[in-house]
Amino acid sequence: MTATNPRPDLGALTAHAGLLYGADWNPEQWPPDVWREDVALMRAAGVNLVTVGVFSWAQLEPRPGRYDLDWLDRVLDLAHEHDVLVDLATPTASPPAWLGALWPGTRPVTADGVRLSHGSRNHFCPSSPQYRERALQVARVLADRYADHPAVGMWHVGNEYGQVCWCEQCAQAFRAWLRTRYGSLDELNRAWGTTFWSQRYDEWSQVVPPRAAPYLINPTQNLDHRRFASDLLLDLYREQRDLLRAAAPDVPVTTNLMGFHAPTDYWRWAPEVDVVADDVYGDPADPASPVRLALTHDLARGLAGGAPWMVMEQAAGAVNWRAHNVPKTAAQMRLDSLRAVARGADGSCFFQWRASVFGAERFHSGLVPHAGPDTVLHRAVAAHGAELRRLRAVAGTRVPARTALVFDWSSWWAAEEPAQPSDRLRVLPQLLAYYEPLWRAGVAVDVVPPGADLSGYDLVVAPQLYLLDDAHVAGLRAVVERGGVLLLGPFSGVADRDGHVRTGRFPVPFADLVGGSGEEYVPLADAGVPVRSALLGDHVVRDWAERVRVDDGEAVATVAGGDLDGCAAVVRRRHPSGGEGWYVASTPPPDVVAGVVAACVAAAGVTGPAGVAGEKDVELVRRGDVTFCLNAADGERAVVLDGAWHDLLTGTDVAGRVSLAPHGVLALTARTP
Amino acid sequence: MTATNPRPDLGALTAHAGLLYGADWNPEQWPPDVWREDVALMRAAGVNLVTVGVFSWAQLEPRPGRYDLDWLDRVLDLAHEHDVLVDLATPTASPPAWLGALWPGTRPVTADGVRLSHGSRNHFCPSSPQYRERALQVARVLADRYADHPAVGMWHVGNEYGQVCWCEQCAQAFRAWLRTRYGSLDELNRAWGTTFWSQRYDEWSQVVPPRAAPYLINPTQNLDHRRFASDLLLDLYREQRDLLRAAAPDVPVTTNLMGFHAPTDYWRWAPEVDVVADDVYGDPADPASPVRLALTHDLARGLAGGAPWMVMEQAAGAVNWRAHNVPKTAAQMRLDSLRAVARGADGSCFFQWRASVFGAERFHSGLVPHAGPDTVLHRAVAAHGAELRRLRAVAGTRVPARTALVFDWSSWWAAEEPAQPSDRLRVLPQLLAYYEPLWRAGVAVDVVPPGADLSGYDLVVAPQLYLLDDAHVAGLRAVVERGGVLLLGPFSGVADRDGHVRTGRFPVPFADLVGGSGEEYVPLADAGVPVRSALLGDHVVRDWAERVRVDDGEAVATVAGGDLDGCAAVVRRRHPSGGEGWYVASTPPPDVVAGVVAACVAAAGVTGPAGVAGEKDVELVRRGDVTFCLNAADGERAVVLDGAWHDLLTGTDVAGRVSLAPHGVLALTARTP
Amino acid sequence: MTATNPRPDLGALTAHAGLLYGADWNPEQWPPDVWREDVALMRAAGVNLVTVGVFSWAQLEPRPGRYDLDWLDRVLDLAHEHDVLVDLATPTASPPAWLGALWPGTRPVTADGVRLSHGSRNHFCPSSPQYRERALQVARVLADRYADHPAVGMWHVGNEYGQVCWCEQCAQAFRAWLRTRYGSLDELNRAWGTTFWSQRYDEWSQVVPPRAAPYLINPTQNLDHRRFASDLLLDLYREQRDLLRAAAPDVPVTTNLMGFHAPTDYWRWAPEVDVVADDVYGDPADPASPVRLALTHDLARGLAGGAPWMVMEQAAGAVNWRAHNVPKTAAQMRLDSLRAVARGADGSCFFQWRASVFGAERFHSGLVPHAGPDTVLHRAVAAHGAELRRLRAVAGTRVPARTALVFDWSSWWAAEEPAQPSDRLRVLPQLLAYYEPLWRAGVAVDVVPPGADLSGYDLVVAPQLYLLDDAHVAGLRAVVERGGVLLLGPFSGVADRDGHVRTGRFPVPFADLVGGSGEEYVPLADAGVPVRSALLGDHVVRDWAERVRVDDGEAVATVAGGDLDGCAAVVRRRHPSGGEGWYVASTPPPDVVAGVVAACVAAAGVTGPAGVAGEKDVELVRRGDVTFCLNAADGERAVVLDGAWHDLLTGTDVAGRVSLAPHGVLALTARTP
Repeated sequence: MTATNPRPDLGALTAHAGLLYGADWNPEQWPPDVWREDVALMRAAGVNLVTVGVFSWAQLEPRPGRYDLDWLDRVLDLAHEHDVLVDLATPTASPPAWLGALWPGTRPVTADGVRLSHGSRNHFCPSSPQYRERALQVARVLADRYADHPAVGMWHVGNEYGQVCWCEQCAQAFRAWLRTRYGSLDELNRAWGTTFWSQRYDEWSQVVPPRAAPYLINPTQNLDHRRFASDLLLDLYREQRDLLRAAAPDVPVTTNLMGFHAPTDYWRWAPEVDVVADDVYGDPADPASPVRLALTHDLARGLAGGAPWMVMEQAAGAVNWRAHNVPKTAAQMRLDSLRAVARGADGSCFFQWRASVFGAERFHSGLVPHAGPDTVLHRAVAAHGAELRRLRAVAGTRVPARTALVFDWSSWWAAEEPAQPSDRLRVLPQLLAYYEPLWRAGVAVDVVPPGADLSGYDLVVAPQLYLLDDAHVAGLRAVVERGGVLLLGPFSGVADRDGHVRTGRFPVPFADLVGGSGEEYVPLADAGVPVRSALLGDHVVRDWAERVRVDDGEAVATVAGGDLDGCAAVVRRRHPSGGEGWYVASTPPPDVVAGVVAACVAAAGVTGPAGVAGEKDVELVRRGDVTFCLNAADGERAVVLDGAWHDLLTGTDVAGRVSLAPHGVLALTARTP
Repeated sequence: MTATNPRPDLGALTAHAGLLYGADWNPEQWPPDVWREDVALMRAAGVNLVTVGVFSWAQLEPRPGRYDLDWLDRVLDLAHEHDVLVDLATPTASPPAWLGALWPGTRPVTADGVRLSHGSRNHFCPSSPQYRERALQVARVLADRYADHPAVGMWHVGNEYGQVCWCEQCAQAFRAWLRTRYGSLDELNRAWGTTFWSQRYDEWSQVVPPRAAPYLINPTQNLDHRRFASDLLLDLYREQRDLLRAAAPDVPVTTNLMGFHAPTDYWRWAPEVDVVADDVYGDPADPASPVRLALTHDLARGLAGGAPWMVMEQAAGAVNWRAHNVPKTAAQMRLDSLRAVARGADGSCFFQWRASVFGAERFHSGLVPHAGPDTVLHRAVAAHGAELRRLRAVAGTRVPARTALVFDWSSWWAAEEPAQPSDRLRVLPQLLAYYEPLWRAGVAVDVVPPGADLSGYDLVVAPQLYLLDDAHVAGLRAVVERGGVLLLGPFSGVADRDGHVRTGRFPVPFADLVGGSGEEYVPLADAGVPVRSALLGDHVVRDWAERVRVDDGEAVATVAGGDLDGCAAVVRRRHPSGGEGWYVASTPPPDVVAGVVAACVAAAGVTGPAGVAGEKDVELVRRGDVTFCLNAADGERAVVLDGAWHDLLTGTDVAGRVSLAPHGVLALTARTP
Repeated sequence: MTATNPRPDLGALTAHAGLLYGADWNPEQWPPDVWREDVALMRAAGVNLVTVGVFSWAQLEPRPGRYDLDWLDRVLDLAHEHDVLVDLATPTASPPAWLGALWPGTRPVTADGVRLSHGSRNHFCPSSPQYRERALQVARVLADRYADHPAVGMWHVGNEYGQVCWCEQCAQAFRAWLRTRYGSLDELNRAWGTTFWSQRYDEWSQVVPPRAAPYLINPTQNLDHRRFASDLLLDLYREQRDLLRAAAPDVPVTTNLMGFHAPTDYWRWAPEVDVVADDVYGDPADPASPVRLALTHDLARGLAGGAPWMVMEQAAGAVNWRAHNVPKTAAQMRLDSLRAVARGADGSCFFQWRASVFGAERFHSGLVPHAGPDTVLHRAVAAHGAELRRLRAVAGTRVPARTALVFDWSSWWAAEEPAQPSDRLRVLPQLLAYYEPLWRAGVAVDVVPPGADLSGYDLVVAPQLYLLDDAHVAGLRAVVERGGVLLLGPFSGVADRDGHVRTGRFPVPFADLVGGSGEEYVPLADAGVPVRSALLGDHVVRDWAERVRVDDGEAVATVAGGDLDGCAAVVRRRHPSGGEGWYVASTPPPDVVAGVVAACVAAAGVTGPAGVAGEKDVELVRRGDVTFCLNAADGERAVVLDGAWHDLLTGTDVAGRVSLAPHGVLALTARTP
């Protein structure tokens, strides 16, 4: 695309429709008389967007090259007649049985060499030429037929990309990707460190994906294979996207992402979608679910570069794929939806419209349950549709943040390889540990990649950035150099982009910046080690410490006793710029992490939304002119307001101490006095 | 068979031999001088039936087509000389090495495509034409030679059928089975719900068994594959049975079933055997073992249509295949054997006669241990043989029951598919939860299939009947309509025979009958929900509740608080017929389930054996004229007798309060005053 | 070899160099300027031996038949210039990528039939002719070039042999091995007990390794396959060894063993190595680690027939392959190294010299950490090098022992087959249970095979000798017959060399010797059984008891109550010879085992080192003239000395009560008064 032809985005839809509200709609599972009931119920519930066709390939092309689109014509017409926009999907996540039967090579192969069978979904090899050709062809047929259909508001390519295949076709694609990355075998041998264990390659054809092997596999081979597998899927997506863009230049194209989804590096995907659309399945049985969801939404907003994004899928009640599927209550359904809106979503959609009665997901909830529309769940759905219309003004607005949380897929992959010092230092738990105090303080956070422009942030937190490209070091150091605060978690900056461990005292790229340096990572015996700290309080560290000495910084916390006696558990250096570099060389308990974060927040001078204070568990987020107060607790909580406010959800004026029902929400705008 | 030619049954043997007592005898593992010791010991121990030849194929046909039956002649003659009947087995569970070497396709393949090897047992593909041909041939050779041998009292086809194979031959057989079931691909597509995830088939050749796939497999495909796999094995069995029946019309034919054995739908198998013979391996380390065993025996009796059945295998001491094999004590061995007799068995046989000294089961106990006959175990074996002779009068008698427990294999399979609402709602634990109070009350229970004739029952309990064919609804409803009590557990009647979820308020087929209806299944967070009940006592429900309202029934228990506040946890409707419909929409703790069952028992007016009351853990069963009192406890317990009784086991008269030793048993007949 | 040409051993090196100290050195991973720093650091640290080339095949032969040895010339020259001996490895554990690419059959296959891929190590099939030919060829190239190089002090064949392959080539090799063992198929059928489950073979080609099968595999097939797999690897080793011996008759040849390493029967390997070299990786997070290490060293010394051995690999800090890798402290590194010396090691080497920065082991510690030599770890390394020079006098001396602990690989394999009575009776835990009291008492123990000459031992302990060849019974019985003490643990002597269970009252070969006999093994329910013992104190036995009666021995401990009431838990018979036979027919708690061992120690009259008494956790070992006192505790402990002593480590005189720092060590020689 060029500057003269900007891509359409969510604004193209919300300008017309307001906040988007809807679900996946699978009319192919129901007789046509149900379709008519569906659209009537949609209109009644305020639904204005449905995703159609995600799993319809076998309906659309029942035999190779024989297309049957009449039913889809009727579906789109029906939607249009009822003012419901359609997010029209290419059905390429689930090929028809004939594809795998005609071309077994279109079916994927495991790392053990097992060719997988029909009967589930995602049964395709991303490198298979036959799969790719037929997938592109069915997308072309849809594009040709519906590019100008007035119902089509968005294109939805494939579904939840994530499949990995170890077949020989994929091995060839891997080699091609490696040739591009490394140029020469010598460079690959260097990057993979193949002098270790005699793994040197002298011909490209010898290089294979990390299939089943006798023992630990080369970690850079693993890492590059994850990078490759993500890029290969992205390539699949782009192929269809380009076709759709060409056919319908004014319709935004997306695919549904999945937040912190291990197989795909969304920092590379995000620039390729017109709309960042995220599938979000928090576990209602998990007390930390509200914090996890908030973090995931902040990632989605980060992927969108701060612009509005949307929830493409969430559950209204229960999912079906956990061992024990506790459903959301109606209040939690509403709370979760409004949390996404508060954190920048311009759309809140669900999987799925009507609960299936057969297939593997028949116990996944829908907006219309098996028991029908006269149910607690569906009545809540309709009520929520109405209140989203009252929030129309937030569409298009942003969530300003002066704090950044750094996260990277390559680092995640590398940090969780086998044979690391400890499997108790996991990336997402570390992210969450540092994010939760910010969430509790109402501090707005952008999740950003390590190479992001950090100039707009006063506080940058990198809880677990094990792998860090040399090219990204300067940007992080500059935060401190210009007076900001950089907070690094343990085991940070260890490896370079190839996954090679940096030599010297660690954190090698930052030791001078934080004023302390280490020589040994120390996974701890179960008893842990006692730590003394005037600022943070004395405490016991379990799981992880490091043999770190203070150089020209200060010890904020110090191990007291045992073999690490005198080592720094937390070290900080204050810089002439006013900036501060912090390194937490341990895994302290949550309240101590909260103390570290609070000190950094204070030093950086960042704050929560003005004029609103909430009790514990009340999440505060400011988006545009609206301050959202979301009660994450299962009991009543209060907020205390400074000045005069108006709640958009109820349309009432509020002031002073305001009580929030369990899982209740306020959406406040300041009244001009 | 026709009415003019009724099949011989157990009575053919017991009329002559009394209660059957014996074991698997494997003389091929021992030199002939041991055989002679064996038969002498058998006679001394009262053994009158041995199963011979289960694993003798390679001895009988050491090379393809070369048979060596001389040794078996001698074995059968020896048995006959000592008045021991032989249950002669076709050796087809374990083919010789030459079969798999000559025809690798006779060896089974896993869902991952691994062709299994020789060295174990059960290494055959049930669809392999070579296997089937050679198996039939060896059976024919045995039938020809021994049809008229006077020792042969019973035929034993194969062994513990259960193997499943995913090879291409089996895929073809699966397709043939599906063609028969559905007639057309359209009907298969409808039944399997292949509009979901684009799974539609347009040619039969595309249909495959549920082999390894990328994600959840179509649940109806899974379900039908389990039905097919059971039917395929049944077909194997029938092939040999027909041959044996033709050769020896007066000898009953059986195969050893295994109680609640997942791979095989014994409701379909039972009509095909002349004798219901069950292998029963309770775990002595499991405190619930006595209840489980009783339930399993009631299933065996149900499979026999109420007629006598037999235990074909049980352990005298320890088994070898658990991780930690606690042996039965001699008292437990006797107790377990008498429990089976009490519950309708006319035979109590063991695996195995003499403990092997090599092979994978060398640590499975035998009636003659490695240490020889001068052992606690073997002396107990002989003593038990003697007392079984004193119970000869019970042979042929029945256990009358007015209570039915409904159980179905298709429902079991479907309910325990992956991706159900919760894996904490398992079928056998639910059966056991409702059965245990009946067992404790001495209420006789028949285990029956959902399509059974229920007209003889006053109380019908269906603890977990997730899948229910439309055709079977009326029979269950009729229980209430004619004044009986129907008690349904949670998540009942959910799916139809294809596994499709019924739409509408649940339990869809019974909501009016129980006077309440639901709209959402609610797997619970760990804290559970508080429930109020005047009848059952206030309690906390964990794991599972449902969003159920009372319609024209009564709430017997009601959720008090939380999101389900006011929902019924147990609902009941009393009908003008005097009948009652109960629905337990939750998983209450055991004492509350016991309260529900007690209320239903009272309403139905069913009772335990007359004239005998037992302390806790004393199991009371009436069979024919004999009332068995079985002490399941590891301590003394008492029974209190009303009137004058005679104990068949000791030959003494008893009355009033009678003490039972730990694991002790009485077999009482009323004395005429 | 012949008497006229004795093989060189460790003495050939230590005479010149003193105790050996060093590490694996992998210069191929580093640029040459690092090599020069390496050798300077080695000399400073007292390093006198490095292992080179273990994983260098792809560097040495980058393309088939094209060798590049120049770099290795420089490495060996550099070592020689700095007085560092080289243990030169054949690089055959990790073939180059081209080998597996050219000949896929050189890559191993799992029991499931998966052919493994390049990218790890050990990716070879031990039967592959192409692998064996190329491996031998690269060894020949090294031998030709370096046989006379003055740096080469030792040859190191392959690495940590242990890989098992299930391919068809290996199946053929298995059959060949079986032909040699059994001579005829009849004898194989007898030994494998193939009358069980119809497993009889009538052609050799039908015999296969224990690949994936439907259920439990024939246990003798499993057992023989483990014996075969060990022998096959030994054959690989010998092939290279013979070549190296021929090229350099004066240089000892070894390979690195791994202590109690399941895949390889080191009793068969030990006679084939010139130097017993052991890899030892205790877990610092395991409190029992010191005892385990001591036991493992006593095994290594046993493998060496009492002569000096060496530690080839150990970690200086952390390893990388556990889930959570707690590092050794510097004091633990030193303690572990000195423990090995105390128990007979003449060398203490490490993996590896310099920590890798890439590859799967980049988080395995090295003697030079990523942070460089100016670190706690490396300073401790250098200090330890210095003190090892002060212990030079112990080189070549022996550890005299009058107590033997019997251990056997075949028995281990057989005892831990599936489908044993209980998986709670594991071999190594049983060994450790009986060894620990001896360790605590400072009693020197030789670990010996069951066929060892036991005439030099007063106490022989066989904690778990499940399988015992008939040929080895007499040697064990003779211990008692000549007045010694034989202590047998539970479940001993059960099976013969074929794994067949001996019939009769157990322990069949020893029942008369211990004066008691049993008839049933009794894995216990969780509550265990109460046991009375005047000698040992009353206690509760969990997990395991046996139905054992006292014959003409004495009950040392007796079950009191329950079904085993009156059975012996420990039985002993005192013999006219003064000897005693003990049988522990249960798994008593540790203090009771200690009581049994103490009684046996007293009866046998064995003692710890003279003149030294230590507090709890102080390990005492006498080697030659030196008494080592090793403090296993993380706190101070004292020893009390009788007479006047000199500590070689500090060069100071000591007497009376001497305090040991946490993990501290003394190496004492008696001063002449």
